[in-house]
Amino acid sequence: MDRLPAVAWRDGAVELLDQTALPATERVVRCADAASLVDAIQRLVVRGAPALGVAGAYGVALALRDPAGVEAAAERIAAARPTAVNLRRGVEHALAAVREGRDPLAAADELAAADAAASRAMVAYGLDLVPDGARVLTHCNTGSLVSAGDGTAYAVARAAHGAGRLARLWVDETRPLLQGARLTAWEAARDGLPYAVLPDNAAGSLFAAGEVDVVLVGADRICADGSVANKVGTYPLAVLARAHGVPFVVVAPVSTVDLATATGKDIVIEQRSADEVTTFGGTRVAPEGAAAYNPAFDVTPPHLVSAIVTERGVVSPVTEQKVRAVAE
Amino acid sequence: MDRLPAVAWRDGAVELLDQTALPATERVVRCADAASLVDAIQRLVVRGAPALGVAGAYGVALALRDPAGVEAAAERIAAARPTAVNLRRGVEHALAAVREGRDPLAAADELAAADAAASRAMVAYGLDLVPDGARVLTHCNTGSLVSAGDGTAYAVARAAHGAGRLARLWVDETRPLLQGARLTAWEAARDGLPYAVLPDNAAGSLFAAGEVDVVLVGADRICADGSVANKVGTYPLAVLARAHGVPFVVVAPVSTVDLATATGKDIVIEQRSADEVTTFGGTRVAPEGAAAYNPAFDVTPPHLVSAIVTERGVVSPVTEQKVRAVAE
Repeated sequence: MDRLPAVAWRDGAVELLDQTALPATERVVRCADAASLVDAIQRLVVRGAPALGVAGAYGVALALRDPAGVEAAAERIAAARPTAVNLRRGVEHALAAVREGRDPLAAADELAAADAAASRAMVAYGLDLVPDGARVLTHCNTGSLVSAGDGTAYAVARAAHGAGRLARLWVDETRPLLQGARLTAWEAARDGLPYAVLPDNAAGSLFAAGEVDVVLVGADRICADGSVANKVGTYPLAVLARAHGVPFVVVAPVSTVDLATATGKDIVIEQRSADEVTTFGGTRVAPEGAAAYNPAFDVTPPHLVSAIVTERGVVSPVTEQKVRAVAE
Repeated sequence: MDRLPAVAWRDGAVELLDQTALPATERVVRCADAASLVDAIQRLVVRGAPALGVAGAYGVALALRDPAGVEAAAERIAAARPTAVNLRRGVEHALAAVREGRDPLAAADELAAADAAASRAMVAYGLDLVPDGARVLTHCNTGSLVSAGDGTAYAVARAAHGAGRLARLWVDETRPLLQGARLTAWEAARDGLPYAVLPDNAAGSLFAAGEVDVVLVGADRICADGSVANKVGTYPLAVLARAHGVPFVVVAPVSTVDLATATGKDIVIEQRSADEVTTFGGTRVAPEGAAAYNPAFDVTPPHLVSAIVTERGVVSPVTEQKVRAVAE
């Protein structure tokens, strides 16, 4: 099957693989002006930090044609998802090119190429940590849907498959938004990986049965002390991995490291809408008025992380000194 | 709100609170003959070991009127769910009364009364393990829907609320079938408990934030060594509880103890249909053809169980000697 990229520039428009329609439908959303790109970003047609950065950069080429002027239109794109730092960085990168009289598309291409190169480097380093015949457990979605390259943790599993050493990819469904069941399983099926989806709470049974050789996850943010903020459900996997003597490996580009955040305690945990938990596809599953606890991510302390794989090399053991050395 | 019982005999029929319709609709299914009771049991209108036993016992009163004869009709009820030991035991209990010329309804009433008494005794013992201002985490559904009384783990939380010492009941949604979100939340709302539903994988965040004082869960089977088989997702909670120094308490009647099963290794784990994971309410969430790992339950080893609360007293520490002493 052809691999549709998450983000591409084609025939004068930004093309996005519609992640809201996956896995049922593979549909491309064409954004020929800044307003439609803003709308698509807000509807989560595209998601994932690096992919948003690339989408923002290509968006500046749309902003150039905007009646409001390139700066105003670019700002609207950059602000489409306020917490997505990479989106604004991508816009700024291409906007800087415009200000210098260069082509923003060339700048966006550079960003996409750098992202793909970072994926390749993480894969090369990460592959050393995957044994022959590995049963790999992963969480959330960290493949080509979030990246202009192959992604992070998923990319390592995919490369292990290519190298003939992946026996099984265990895919946590990743409640509440099911990025594992919907997106990672779709990527795994497309790439021909041997995989199976599981309820998040069944991971304990896999560890107990000796069916997991390594855990590979991505990261939303890595603190200076090596604490890892990632999709909710990551921390329980780290605790289980430790209890069963299984390596717990984080795969993330250096841009994820935030040295300004000292420790996990300094991270404010975003609480998301109760509706994500109490309803499903528009159907109410909990009683009317039910409260919900729905944190977007959790924090894994550095002592539970066996290694952090970056495009500049592997941080292991995870200490503040080694994290600073790779990031600075 | 009136508390509808899970199972009752009324006006010549077995009445079941339809658990397939909760929490959206509170509907009673009336079974006036053995065939309709078999159908209701198979459709999971009623579920939970003690409740199935009571339903089976009342069913013998329907079997008495069956043209096929009481023995044949009772056997059809007993076989409606082959793995439900309590269902067959309940049928046998009432059938023994019939054979002795006694009223099967009186025998069924005895069974229901004994179940309710066991609940009350477990509550009395369990309450001692719940501190003032407790934040209690629970999993699956263990309340009055599974019992002729108040249930097991949930009953203790409910009594703690009645005693003014429950600050919060944290309700795991309990994927894949959502017994927590659908049923425990419904019971908690009806009983006026302060509660919130969470994705199973968010429990780690609660422990890390110091928001859990005690874990209360039920059991499907307890081995001679004190290993506890329970709904999938129980074991990860036990590992997290231990990592955070939080008591992990199992509440279950003595009938759950199976001395013929020596250790957790001797339990065959039932794998359920992939559809429960890959579809949701009829909507496919994983790609067509996706495999799934979907164990019905998991096994928690005795060293992670702080206490087992039964109607005959508390087993703690959990050793084979103490388990045998309470069960024999």
